[in-house]
Amino acid sequence: MDEITVETVTDVDLTDTVLIEGLPGVGNVGKLAVNHLLDETDAELVCRVYSEHFPPQVSVDDDGIASLTAMEFYATTLDDQDVLLLTGDHQAQSNHGHYRITNAILDIADDYDVSTIYALGGVPTGELIEEYDVLGAATVDTMVEELSEYGVEFRDNEPTGGIVGVSGLLLGLSENRSINAACLMGETSGYMVDPKSARAVLEILQDALSFDVDYSELEDRAEKMEEVVSRIQEMESQQSAPAPTEDDLRYIG
Amino acid sequence: MDEITVETVTDVDLTDTVLIEGLPGVGNVGKLAVNHLLDETDAELVCRVYSEHFPPQVSVDDDGIASLTAMEFYATTLDDQDVLLLTGDHQAQSNHGHYRITNAILDIADDYDVSTIYALGGVPTGELIEEYDVLGAATVDTMVEELSEYGVEFRDNEPTGGIVGVSGLLLGLSENRSINAACLMGETSGYMVDPKSARAVLEILQDALSFDVDYSELEDRAEKMEEVVSRIQEMESQQSAPAPTEDDLRYIG
Amino acid sequence: MDEITVETVTDVDLTDTVLIEGLPGVGNVGKLAVNHLLDETDAELVCRVYSEHFPPQVSVDDDGIASLTAMEFYATTLDDQDVLLLTGDHQAQSNHGHYRITNAILDIADDYDVSTIYALGGVPTGELIEEYDVLGAATVDTMVEELSEYGVEFRDNEPTGGIVGVSGLLLGLSENRSINAACLMGETSGYMVDPKSARAVLEILQDALSFDVDYSELEDRAEKMEEVVSRIQEMESQQSAPAPTEDDLRYIG
Amino acid sequence: MDEITVETVTDVDLTDTVLIEGLPGVGNVGKLAVNHLLDETDAELVCRVYSEHFPPQVSVDDDGIASLTAMEFYATTLDDQDVLLLTGDHQAQSNHGHYRITNAILDIADDYDVSTIYALGGVPTGELIEEYDVLGAATVDTMVEELSEYGVEFRDNEPTGGIVGVSGLLLGLSENRSINAACLMGETSGYMVDPKSARAVLEILQDALSFDVDYSELEDRAEKMEEVVSRIQEMESQQSAPAPTEDDLRYIG
Repeated sequence: MDEITVETVTDVDLTDTVLIEGLPGVGNVGKLAVNHLLDETDAELVCRVYSEHFPPQVSVDDDGIASLTAMEFYATTLDDQDVLLLTGDHQAQSNHGHYRITNAILDIADDYDVSTIYALGGVPTGELIEEYDVLGAATVDTMVEELSEYGVEFRDNEPTGGIVGVSGLLLGLSENRSINAACLMGETSGYMVDPKSARAVLEILQDALSFDVDYSELEDRAEKMEEVVSRIQEMESQQSAPAPTEDDLRYIG
Repeated sequence: MDEITVETVTDVDLTDTVLIEGLPGVGNVGKLAVNHLLDETDAELVCRVYSEHFPPQVSVDDDGIASLTAMEFYATTLDDQDVLLLTGDHQAQSNHGHYRITNAILDIADDYDVSTIYALGGVPTGELIEEYDVLGAATVDTMVEELSEYGVEFRDNEPTGGIVGVSGLLLGLSENRSINAACLMGETSGYMVDPKSARAVLEILQDALSFDVDYSELEDRAEKMEEVVSRIQEMESQQSAPAPTEDDLRYIG
Repeated sequence: MDEITVETVTDVDLTDTVLIEGLPGVGNVGKLAVNHLLDETDAELVCRVYSEHFPPQVSVDDDGIASLTAMEFYATTLDDQDVLLLTGDHQAQSNHGHYRITNAILDIADDYDVSTIYALGGVPTGELIEEYDVLGAATVDTMVEELSEYGVEFRDNEPTGGIVGVSGLLLGLSENRSINAACLMGETSGYMVDPKSARAVLEILQDALSFDVDYSELEDRAEKMEEVVSRIQEMESQQSAPAPTEDDLRYIG
Repeated sequence: MDEITVETVTDVDLTDTVLIEGLPGVGNVGKLAVNHLLDETDAELVCRVYSEHFPPQVSVDDDGIASLTAMEFYATTLDDQDVLLLTGDHQAQSNHGHYRITNAILDIADDYDVSTIYALGGVPTGELIEEYDVLGAATVDTMVEELSEYGVEFRDNEPTGGIVGVSGLLLGLSENRSINAACLMGETSGYMVDPKSARAVLEILQDALSFDVDYSELEDRAEKMEEVVSRIQEMESQQSAPAPTEDDLRYIG
């Protein structure tokens, strides 16, 4: 095995493709959004990417079969638009790993004629969200203008500290590749997985790519999260128990 | 010295070999199990693997002679079956180190015609164990079925978080090598070295490979552990002293 | 992308150049000083240096456009002296990254005929500063002598622990390159960004290179910092609130 | 600069050389011992070793001149025996760095015809020492026997956890080089630099290599340490102040 290994599963021929990335991150917003598109469209597994920059880990499915940690690219179409969906269980585990994984993603993007990238993620606000705004950043003015029309907010000095990880690097490293890229970041408390924030991000994407999906699945997950949260709040008000940690909540949804 | 160095000690010729791995880990279950097989069978040292992915450390034997940290492969037979036993004092110390060490193990496995791997380990439950179940995962359905018959449990979403380290990667990285692999994980509290869990794992292996070993040595160790634990529990109930940490207990046995 | 990538923006022809480095560090003294020279002189962006040794991060400007973390070299003249100014948002994130980034800087220095380097930084005193002394270190006696005349202090065993990071390595690694280098370290409390310490460092540089800049901008920043500090001190004396952490203050200025 | 750079300062021709290593470590025992030999014999700087595995750091001497962190080899003779002394300010900063630095040391050892290595260090006991025993480990029986005669203790399972760092690896990695190596570890509390432990180690070496040095310098340092310790103990008994940390004490001597 090399540092990064790409295993092609299905040969597909895509043109003028849009790549939508949703790896784990704040509120799991990006991953929830991309996984929702995976569930709702007839997406096909194209390739897996293995790397020693991921944790040394296998997951075990319900049949007891182990499989090595990987990122996965799926092909689908949204309103006749060729689309690659990128998801996975892990980000890279080191600084230089992030750079190398992102370059591997962009090499694959070149192979499948990707011309536009949407990197999806969450931006933590530290408080519960009433209205789910979506923040943006892009590599070119035209995308900023277009996304502004769909309601994406481009705010001075936000996100503070910039965009970290693969989502950020997809923008930073795509410049030399004649690919335009934007990052869509759903506001989220940062305390739990956030299907509502994922929906807010998907609704922007719906306008940008003119497609239509059903949200009942994400709504169900959001309701379950809210039940858990209100049960915890109840417990908290009864006892002076310590508040649930981020970890408690992150893995409930 | 290269990144990984293999020092061959004895030339052996093995056929259709079973590799049994037991490196340090939770409850030291895997290492206890493999070391028990080493003690009970006429195993012969085949080779040592040195690597800069291990800690920069030598151990000193009772004669004052220092030797460099290494993994060791031993050859033995169990019911006419050629077997390689893999043990050592350390896992790799980094993510990519785990990948590289595991690939080195699999290269050696290829050299000795390994067709099946059993990776032994422990899975922490966080509480004292009454009945020592063994959880499993495998690379192929046939091994899941066979091991289920011997009493191995394949449970949905367990172990949560997958299998980490060399044991996990032996499954994840063996797929491209026409080697079948399974991981046998003895339930253990996670608070101390656990000879009983090691025995539970070995009893599965006994069925799978049709061999027979004596367990009096492991029983002795288990009894000593229990004495220590009950002495600590006594001390705890007398004083409100802080509970022994995992480190206190891990190195007693 | 390689480990380190240099993107040339403007071709410039410089002779007998002075390189002034001001990357982030204690009190942000070096960066404040170099950025002040950038603002006050007609400096031109010469090249950007990208590296996987920097954090995997993009910053987002006021127009929503993302750009990859980089170091930047600017060309300017100070009293007819060709000058390169080096600034950036980050230091390298690992030991060996510091070495490699510094060697990349020195390679670029060679390309632009750099003969002298001033590495600017802060040295933490742990207490509020009344008089802003500047400590020095150099690679050759002649620079020690000259800088002593301008008021730089060369004290026995200071800074204790030596000089860490790119500023230190610019001295340590320039010896084999026929470049003379000095480090100018403004004393600073270490608790906040310190425009006054940056000014003290610049005033030494002014003598060394015979140039003249206006300090009203740095004075404004210093005043704002002092307001914030006195407001915090007031709050502290009223409540027994916990003191502001270094992080609170570092990013105010 | 490569990963490791050797700068030869003086050409020397050595035969059947003994290498004595004393890098920083527990109680600074090894470094104190080797530095004492440097001070007491007419040792000559042979070469410096620079590496990106050391901290990115320069030290500044009393004249304000900066020099890059390095290990240094000095040549001297002890009772007509050619000797190389190895000292430095830092150990490597990572696991694999320790391996690579040690291999570089052994390459240099080969260049200067080293046949025997003494790696000097301290072993922490956690309590104040009355009688300064010296523990040993070696690569060959003959050295164990000889050193036992000089009073070195070879105890079962000590040091627990083996020998970590360059001292350990000099034994572990010298086996394939036809060099015999021993480690001499002076018992020390582990709480402060320990000139008395360094003397105990040197006295063994004196027997092994039949040389003679004056110890008044080390005695002076030991007395100063004891004054500091008794002053601290006084302060502690007067106030219920927190005990000085290891760091407080380590850098006093």
